[in-house]
Amino acid sequence: MNPEGMLLVISAPSGAGKSTLIRMLCRDFPGFGFSVSYTTRPPREKEVHGKDYFFVSREQFQGLMEKNFFAEWAEVHGNFYGTPAQQILDSIREGRSLIMDVDVQGARQIKNSLKRGVYIFVFPPSLEELRQRLMQRGSDPAGVIKNRLQNAVLEIQKSDFFDYWLVNDEINASHARLKAIVMAEMLRPSFNPDLIRKITSGERHDS
Amino acid sequence: MNPEGMLLVISAPSGAGKSTLIRMLCRDFPGFGFSVSYTTRPPREKEVHGKDYFFVSREQFQGLMEKNFFAEWAEVHGNFYGTPAQQILDSIREGRSLIMDVDVQGARQIKNSLKRGVYIFVFPPSLEELRQRLMQRGSDPAGVIKNRLQNAVLEIQKSDFFDYWLVNDEINASHARLKAIVMAEMLRPSFNPDLIRKITSGERHDS
Repeated sequence: MNPEGMLLVISAPSGAGKSTLIRMLCRDFPGFGFSVSYTTRPPREKEVHGKDYFFVSREQFQGLMEKNFFAEWAEVHGNFYGTPAQQILDSIREGRSLIMDVDVQGARQIKNSLKRGVYIFVFPPSLEELRQRLMQRGSDPAGVIKNRLQNAVLEIQKSDFFDYWLVNDEINASHARLKAIVMAEMLRPSFNPDLIRKITSGERHDS
Repeated sequence: MNPEGMLLVISAPSGAGKSTLIRMLCRDFPGFGFSVSYTTRPPREKEVHGKDYFFVSREQFQGLMEKNFFAEWAEVHGNFYGTPAQQILDSIREGRSLIMDVDVQGARQIKNSLKRGVYIFVFPPSLEELRQRLMQRGSDPAGVIKNRLQNAVLEIQKSDFFDYWLVNDEINASHARLKAIVMAEMLRPSFNPDLIRKITSGERHDS
């Protein structure tokens, strides 16, 4: 009996520090991969089909939607993006762990359709600090920042279904806490389904 | 809204290293206390009523049993031992965290009657290593060790209801994993019930 892989689903308002945390986590646990999404948006330079995205036509995408191919999908700026359900389930069943970086609505849909996974929501320590971080990035005009802050409030209000809440007040402390979540989740019985049999039959288990 | 305390219930076969791990954990998280059990056994020298145990008569104990006072109880070598349910619930509701060190049967009873808590089972890396550790302790004759090993197999076989399985192959690694479990459990929404309101109303949260 092989243990399943872990499905780690991480959401956060823009500017909360999620991408940095995910990068740090991937260094700690190099076994984690990313799921590859489907999109109708045209590939950008250097983007590789099957690695960055599966690039499909609107007709193909809609055909897949109708077959319930996607664990979640969304339309953003006129393009469709979707997460393939079966590929994720196959990955996990074969023992490969995945990190998914999705918005709150996507996380909820994935939880409802796949019925598994570890769901982490990253909070900023305050809205004021989030505003300052977004301004310091310098990439967004004031109107976009205002819009991101309003979205942040909406996302935070819907974050009650997550398994863990991580307040990113200081990046190294948050990194340690995120690592602790993954370490702890690896100690779940479902992650070691053969342990009772192994130990009681006289075998040895090393972590 | 104050967060509840954490109820950490730890079980392990004799010799798996549970007591050492609990001692290490108490240094990491000095906020954890221990629940005080009731017993009909006479106090030993230096034992303090209300600190080491609540020492009661058999009649008192049986009266309490009949009132469902105990989350779990057991008879060991002719003496009764019981864990008071209400005191534990009061402690937790008042925000005080507790560690309970009980056998597998006691852990199951506590889980069934209190319907909360984080349940951790500590495995030895193998039965052979457990036998060696028990022999190295030098405190038990061969017959007692054989008995402890048989009990270990029975406890391991019934450990499927625990939330986390910790294989104690190396004490420092196990300590880090146990610490990770507690760190992760502190990030549960139930441990931070006020967070959404706090952040969305413009307050700041520092961990």
